[in-house]
Amino acid sequence: MAEEQSSRPAGEPATEPGPAPEVECKNEDGVLQDPEDPESTGGNGTDISSLEQPLLKRSPTLTASHLAIVGAKVSHIESLDYEIIENDLFKHDWRSRSNVEVLQYIFLKWAMAFLVGLLTGVIASVTNLAIENITGLKMLHMVNLVRERRYWAGFLYFAGVNFALTFVAAVLCVVFAPTAAGPGIPEIKAYLNGVDTPNMFGAPQLIVKIIGSIGAVSSGMDLGKEGPLVHIGACLANLLSQGGEGRWRLRWRWLRYFNNDRDRRDLITCGASSGVCAAFRSPVGGVLFALEEVATWWRSALLWRTFFSTATVVVVLRGFIEVCRDGRCGMFGEGGLILFDVSGVTVHYHVGDLLPVTLVGVLGGLLGALYNHVLHQVLRLYNLINAKGRLAKLALALAVCVFTSAGLYLLPFAVPCTPCDAGLAAAGVCPTVGKSGNFKQFNCPDGYYNDLASLLHATNTDATRNIFSTGTSGEFRLDSLLIFFAIYCVLGLITFGIAVPSGLFLPIILMGSAYGRILALVLAKFVHIDHGLYAVLGAAALMSGSMRMTVSLCVIFLELTNNLLLLPITMFVLLIAKTVGDAFNPSIYEIILDLKGLPFLEPKPETWMKDLTVGELAAAKPRAITLQVVEKVSTVVEVLRSTPHNGFPVVDRPRPGVSELHGLVLRSHLMAVLRKKWFLTEKRRTEEWEAREKFSSTELAEKAGSIDEVQLSPEEMEMYIDLHPFTNTTPYTVVETMSVAKAVVLFRTCALRHMLIIPKFHQISPIVGILTRQDLRAHNILGAFPHLANKRKVH
Amino acid sequence: MAEEQSSRPAGEPATEPGPAPEVECKNEDGVLQDPEDPESTGGNGTDISSLEQPLLKRSPTLTASHLAIVGAKVSHIESLDYEIIENDLFKHDWRSRSNVEVLQYIFLKWAMAFLVGLLTGVIASVTNLAIENITGLKMLHMVNLVRERRYWAGFLYFAGVNFALTFVAAVLCVVFAPTAAGPGIPEIKAYLNGVDTPNMFGAPQLIVKIIGSIGAVSSGMDLGKEGPLVHIGACLANLLSQGGEGRWRLRWRWLRYFNNDRDRRDLITCGASSGVCAAFRSPVGGVLFALEEVATWWRSALLWRTFFSTATVVVVLRGFIEVCRDGRCGMFGEGGLILFDVSGVTVHYHVGDLLPVTLVGVLGGLLGALYNHVLHQVLRLYNLINAKGRLAKLALALAVCVFTSAGLYLLPFAVPCTPCDAGLAAAGVCPTVGKSGNFKQFNCPDGYYNDLASLLHATNTDATRNIFSTGTSGEFRLDSLLIFFAIYCVLGLITFGIAVPSGLFLPIILMGSAYGRILALVLAKFVHIDHGLYAVLGAAALMSGSMRMTVSLCVIFLELTNNLLLLPITMFVLLIAKTVGDAFNPSIYEIILDLKGLPFLEPKPETWMKDLTVGELAAAKPRAITLQVVEKVSTVVEVLRSTPHNGFPVVDRPRPGVSELHGLVLRSHLMAVLRKKWFLTEKRRTEEWEAREKFSSTELAEKAGSIDEVQLSPEEMEMYIDLHPFTNTTPYTVVETMSVAKAVVLFRTCALRHMLIIPKFHQISPIVGILTRQDLRAHNILGAFPHLANKRKVH
Repeated sequence: MAEEQSSRPAGEPATEPGPAPEVECKNEDGVLQDPEDPESTGGNGTDISSLEQPLLKRSPTLTASHLAIVGAKVSHIESLDYEIIENDLFKHDWRSRSNVEVLQYIFLKWAMAFLVGLLTGVIASVTNLAIENITGLKMLHMVNLVRERRYWAGFLYFAGVNFALTFVAAVLCVVFAPTAAGPGIPEIKAYLNGVDTPNMFGAPQLIVKIIGSIGAVSSGMDLGKEGPLVHIGACLANLLSQGGEGRWRLRWRWLRYFNNDRDRRDLITCGASSGVCAAFRSPVGGVLFALEEVATWWRSALLWRTFFSTATVVVVLRGFIEVCRDGRCGMFGEGGLILFDVSGVTVHYHVGDLLPVTLVGVLGGLLGALYNHVLHQVLRLYNLINAKGRLAKLALALAVCVFTSAGLYLLPFAVPCTPCDAGLAAAGVCPTVGKSGNFKQFNCPDGYYNDLASLLHATNTDATRNIFSTGTSGEFRLDSLLIFFAIYCVLGLITFGIAVPSGLFLPIILMGSAYGRILALVLAKFVHIDHGLYAVLGAAALMSGSMRMTVSLCVIFLELTNNLLLLPITMFVLLIAKTVGDAFNPSIYEIILDLKGLPFLEPKPETWMKDLTVGELAAAKPRAITLQVVEKVSTVVEVLRSTPHNGFPVVDRPRPGVSELHGLVLRSHLMAVLRKKWFLTEKRRTEEWEAREKFSSTELAEKAGSIDEVQLSPEEMEMYIDLHPFTNTTPYTVVETMSVAKAVVLFRTCALRHMLIIPKFHQISPIVGILTRQDLRAHNILGAFPHLANKRKVH
Repeated sequence: MAEEQSSRPAGEPATEPGPAPEVECKNEDGVLQDPEDPESTGGNGTDISSLEQPLLKRSPTLTASHLAIVGAKVSHIESLDYEIIENDLFKHDWRSRSNVEVLQYIFLKWAMAFLVGLLTGVIASVTNLAIENITGLKMLHMVNLVRERRYWAGFLYFAGVNFALTFVAAVLCVVFAPTAAGPGIPEIKAYLNGVDTPNMFGAPQLIVKIIGSIGAVSSGMDLGKEGPLVHIGACLANLLSQGGEGRWRLRWRWLRYFNNDRDRRDLITCGASSGVCAAFRSPVGGVLFALEEVATWWRSALLWRTFFSTATVVVVLRGFIEVCRDGRCGMFGEGGLILFDVSGVTVHYHVGDLLPVTLVGVLGGLLGALYNHVLHQVLRLYNLINAKGRLAKLALALAVCVFTSAGLYLLPFAVPCTPCDAGLAAAGVCPTVGKSGNFKQFNCPDGYYNDLASLLHATNTDATRNIFSTGTSGEFRLDSLLIFFAIYCVLGLITFGIAVPSGLFLPIILMGSAYGRILALVLAKFVHIDHGLYAVLGAAALMSGSMRMTVSLCVIFLELTNNLLLLPITMFVLLIAKTVGDAFNPSIYEIILDLKGLPFLEPKPETWMKDLTVGELAAAKPRAITLQVVEKVSTVVEVLRSTPHNGFPVVDRPRPGVSELHGLVLRSHLMAVLRKKWFLTEKRRTEEWEAREKFSSTELAEKAGSIDEVQLSPEEMEMYIDLHPFTNTTPYTVVETMSVAKAVVLFRTCALRHMLIIPKFHQISPIVGILTRQDLRAHNILGAFPHLANKRKVH
C-alpha cells in the first residue's frame, strides 16, 4: 500500500466497526479536516485563507528517499531523536529518580568516557604493534631475496603476502561487515548530525575493523589506520553505552539511563575524539577534530568529557611506548606511534619564503579540489562494481592490491643508486639494511642507497617519517619524488573505495608531503626553511584542500611536529588551501555523504530558503497522518502498517467542530502499547497511574520493531488505545508562514526529528503538516521547487 | 506609571477619541481577552481549561530587575536580538541584494577579522613595550638608590612613581570610562550570551583601557594586561563593525550589513580571541578560550574566522619581536612577549610523580574555590566603597597601590642573601644588576643575590618567567617562596576590584606558580620533574580551580611552554582541579556576572525547571501588552511611554469574536515609524510598496532612542499606524504546556530575545504571554516559585 494513500480523517471519531479497516482507510485522502471543505470546521475559513495566505497549491511533489548506500548496499536510513519527549511517563520517570541515581548517572558518564579512552588506546597500540611487526618481517625477507638477486622470487613473495593479507581483510569485510569498509568518518559525522546508519557501530563492525585494518595496512596498500581508528572509537562508545550487542547485551538497571539517543551521541563524540587522538597522538587535535569536522552539536560539558577521553588515550599510548622501549614488542615495535618530531629544528622565516609557502597553500587547495573531484568519479564507478556482488568486491580489492604490490616493488628499480654521504656512511646510518631507516640499500651496492626504496619499501607511517625527516634536503632525487608523487596519486584514487577498512588521512599526507618536497626542490633558490618542513606544509595544505579543516589540522600538525614556531606558517597555508578548495567543490567528507545519500543537514541554510515558507513546503508533501487522543486499535495498526513514519501528530476533539493539536506520539511507543496489548474496551481517558503501572521507562526506550510481529484478534482490533500518557504534548512547532531558512536553523540547532507546522489561522485545522530531516534538505526541496535553484549560497 | 498597569485591551478596537489616553489605559488590567471572562471569545473555554490545564493562578510575583552594575554604577541592561526579524521590509531588503553586494559582505567579514587581528596585535605590542620600558627605568633607578644604601629615598621614589602611575590610570577610569575598570571578560561573555552592557565597547573604553592598563601594570600592582587585552580586542571589533563611535561614526553604505547584532557578535568573538592570543602569544589557545569560556553560540565558519584573526595577531607579534631583536625598542623591550619557554627540557615521568602531581591538582581546586569565595566577599565590600563616589574609588585604588609598593619594596629585606653558585657567578649570570634576570643582587654584597627581590622587583611577567625558570631547583628558598605566596594571595584579593583596568590571569598565575614550587620543595623526595615545571603545573591548576576551563588553558599552557611532553600531565592536573573546584562554587567569571547582576543564561537548565510549565511562568507575570495590526498612534505612544519593553505581540482581528496572533513588532521599529510620522488617516492595511518607499533598512537598524524625543500633535495622535510591514510574522512560539527546561534550551540555542507563549486551546486568546531572558533565569523563577528550590542541578 502506498504511503500517500493510507490515512484517515482525524476529524471524525473512528466508530465504524468491521474487520476490513484497510478499505475504509483507502477511501480517503485527507487526514485533517479538508481545507477544500472548510465548512466542517464551523468557521468561514475559506475567505481568510484566500485573504491572508499565499496560494497554497497541493501538488505532492516533495519526494524524499529514505534510502542510502550503507557498505555498498542500499539500506533504509532512520533519523535519530535528540528531543526530550515530554510525555506523562517520561515526566514520571525522571521525577522518581533519587539523588543517588542522579549521581550514579553523572559518575557513569565519566566512567564511560574513561573506558572509551582506555579501550581505544589499547586497541590502537595493539593494532600498531601488529602492523609494524607484520610489515617489518615481510620487508626483511623481501629485501633479503633482492640482496640475493632473486628478483622474481622477491616479487612473488612480496605480492603473495600482500595478496593474502588483503584477502583476509576483504573477505572479513565483504562477508561479515560490509559497513566496516572505508573510514567510517562520514557515517559518524552523519550519526552526530542525527542520521542513524544501520549496522554501523556494532560488535561485528568493531572486530572486522580491527582485524581488517591490520591486514589492509600491512599489505602495503595506500591507506591509513587513522580513519578506522576513529570508527573503532565510535563503535566502542556505542557498544559501551548499550551494554553490548544484540543478544549478548547487558541489561543492567543503571545502563537504562544511557538508552537514549542523546547520551549515546555524546559518548560517540568521545569515541571519535579518542580515535583521532590515538591515530596521531594528538589529544587536543582529537577534541578539535570532533568539534570542527564531526560533531553537529556541542557544549562545554562535552568538551571536558572528550578531553578526558583523549587524555586517557594519551596516557595509555605513553605507557605502551614505555613498555616497548626496550624492544620487548618485537620488530620495529615503537615506530608507528611517533610520526614526526621536529622539535629540535629552529625555524627562521624570511620574507622570501612567503612566495613558495603561498604556492604550497594555493597548490594544496587546487590539488585537494582536484583530488575530491576525481575521487568522486572513481567512487561512483566503484559503487557500480561493488553493487555487482560479493565476488566483484573481493576481486576489486585484490586487483588493487596486486597493482599496488607491483608498483611498490618494481618502481625502485627505475631510479639509479645514490652514493651515501661520507659522514653518514661512517656513522653507519647509510645505507640501512634489515631495519627501518632513511637510506635503504635495496638493490644497490654497498655505500649506495636507493632513495625511492626508502619511501616505497616501508610502512606508510615509516614512509611519512622518511619524507618528513629534516636535514635531508639532498637525500631525495627529484625524479624519485616525482615517481613517488605520481604513484601515490594513482594509488590514493583507486584504493579508497575498495572493500577494506581504509583511512583517507595517510594517502593525502603522503601525496602532500611529496609535492611539498618537490616544490622545495624546484624552488630551492627561494627556500630558506628545511625541506622536511616543506613536506609537512605540503601535507597540511593538501589535507586542508581536500578535507577543509583548519583549526584541528593545525593542532594535529602542531602536536605531530611538536614545534610551535611552525604554527603561524601552518595556519597561513591551511587557510589559503581551504579558501582555494572551497571555491571549487565541497569537502571530501561532504562528497562521500552525498554519494551515500545520507541526509546530512548543513549548518547554514541556503539563501533561497528565505523565499519559501514551511507552509508551501508542507503543501508539496502528502498530507500528514494524524491520530486521535483515544484511537481505535485497528486504525493504529493500519497507520503503522502502511507508513514507515516515526512520529504521528495527535489531535484532540474536546467538543464537536473543534479540533486541537494534542502533541506527537512516537512509533516506538505505539508499538510498545500494541505489544503489551494495553487496550481499553470503551473510548475513555485513562488515569495517569494506569499507564505507569504497565510501562517501564526501559520498555519505552526500546526500538520500534516490526508491526508484523504483533498478532491481534478481531476483538482486540475493535478496542481503543488512550494515547495521553505517551504523547509528547510539547513538540516543537512553527507557524506556516515561517521561512524555511529559519525553520532549518531551528531544526538543526535543537536537533529535532519532527517539526510540526501549525496554521496561522486556527479555525481551519490544528496542523498543516509535519517536517522531517528529509523535507528540509536543499536537494529535496529543489526537486519540488526548481525555480529556486538560481540563487547561490551565502557563506 | 507602573509597568504592570499600562495596557489596553486588544480584543476591542481602539476607537475612543480623547486627549488623555493614559486614563483609559489605566482603567484596564487585561490586555488579552480575559480568561476569567471567556464568554467574550465566543467559546466555552472555561470548562476546557479546567479539564485540561493545571490550575493557572494569576499571582504577579515573577519580578525581574533589568538593572545591573556596570562600572560600579547601576545601569539599565538591554538584551540583544540575534533572531532574524522576518518582516516585509527585511524580506524585501535581502531579496534586493545583488551578487556583488553579497560578495562584498563576505569579503568585508574577512577584512574585518583581519583588521581586528592586526590592530589588536599592534596595540598589544605597543602596550608591552610601554610597560617594559616604564617598569624597567623605574626599577633601575630604585635599585641604584638601594645600592647606594639610600633605602628611604628608594622607597619614596618607588612608591611615588607607582602612586603617580596608578593615579593616572584610576583618574582616567573613574572620570572617563568607569566600565574600563576590571578585566571586561565577564561583560564580553554576557554580550555574547545576548546581554548588551551599556558603554562597554566604545572608543572611550578602548582608549582608557590601553592607557590605564599601561599605567596600572607599570605601577607594579598585582594585575595583568591579559584581561584588558581581551577587552581591547572586543572594543576594536565593536568599533570596526559600527564604523566608529557616536558622532564620528562612518556611515558608509557597505557598513550597513554589519548594523545588526549577529554580525557584531561574530566580530566581537574574533576580537576576544585576538586579545587572548595577543596576551599569551597563543593563537589556538585564543580560539579555544573564546569557544570554551566566552562564546555562547558557535559554528565552524566562526571557528575559521577567529582562527584567521589570531593568526594575524601572531604574525604581527612575531614581526614586532624581529624589529625589537636588536634592542631598537628601548629597555627590556623583548621581554613581555615570551612568557616561558621550556621546549628544551626533556620531561620524564615516574610513577612516583603521580602523588605530588595529584596533590597539585587537588590543592589547585581547593585554593581556586577558596580564592573565588574570598574574592566574592571582597568584591561585595568594594562595591559598597565604590558606590560612595568617585573620590572613594580613587582613594581605594591609591591605597591598594601604596600597600603594594610597601610590600614589594620592604619584603626582600626580610630574607637573607644567598651566595651565588660558582658556575653561575663565573658566567656573569649571578648576581644581576641593572637588567632583568633571575638573580637580583638588590641589597646583597657582591657574589650574593636576594631571591625574593628577583621575584618582587620585576614586572609581573618577569616574575613569572623567573619562577617558571627551569634548572633552578635550588635557587629559591622556601621562606622566600612562602612570603611571595602570602603577599600575592593578599594582593590578588585586594587588587582586583579597584577602579583600574586589571586582568585576573596573571595574579592567579603568580599565586599558582608559587604554591607549585613550594609543593615541589616540600615534597622534594617524590619529585622527579623540574621544579620550574611544578610552578607551571601549579599555575595551571589554580587557574583551572578558579576559572574552571580545561581545554583552552591546556592549549594556552602548551603554547606558552612550547613543550608537548608536558601535555598529558597538564591535562590531568587541569581536570582534577576543575572537578574539585566545581564541588564548591561556580567559576570566578560566573561569580562576577552574578555580582554585577548581568542576566546570563546558563547552558544547562536546572532540573526543577522540568517541573514547571511556561504557562505557569507566564501566569506569574503581568499580562503581556499587545498591539493590533492597525493601531492608533496614541495607543502606540502610550505603550512605548509606559513600558520599557522591546517587543510587543501584534494581534489581528480578522472578524468579530476571533483574534489571531499576527507576530511581534520591535520597539525600535515603532520608534522609526513615530519619528517618520508614517501615519494613516483611516484604519486600513497599506500596500507593501508604501512602507518600502518610506523606510530604508539602515533606518530600521537604528537603536530605538527615547520616546520623549517624538513630538506629536493631538491630530496625529488620533491617526493610525499599519504594523503589517514591520511585524515579524514568525516569532518563535512555544505552547503553554512546554516545560521551562525545554523552553530555556530553545531560547538559548536559538539566541532569542522574545519568546511568545501560545495557548494550547486557541479559543481563549491568541497569546498567553511573552518570555524574555530575565523570565528564564533560575534565580528569578525561584523568587516566584520558591518551592522548586529543593531540587539540585544535574550536570
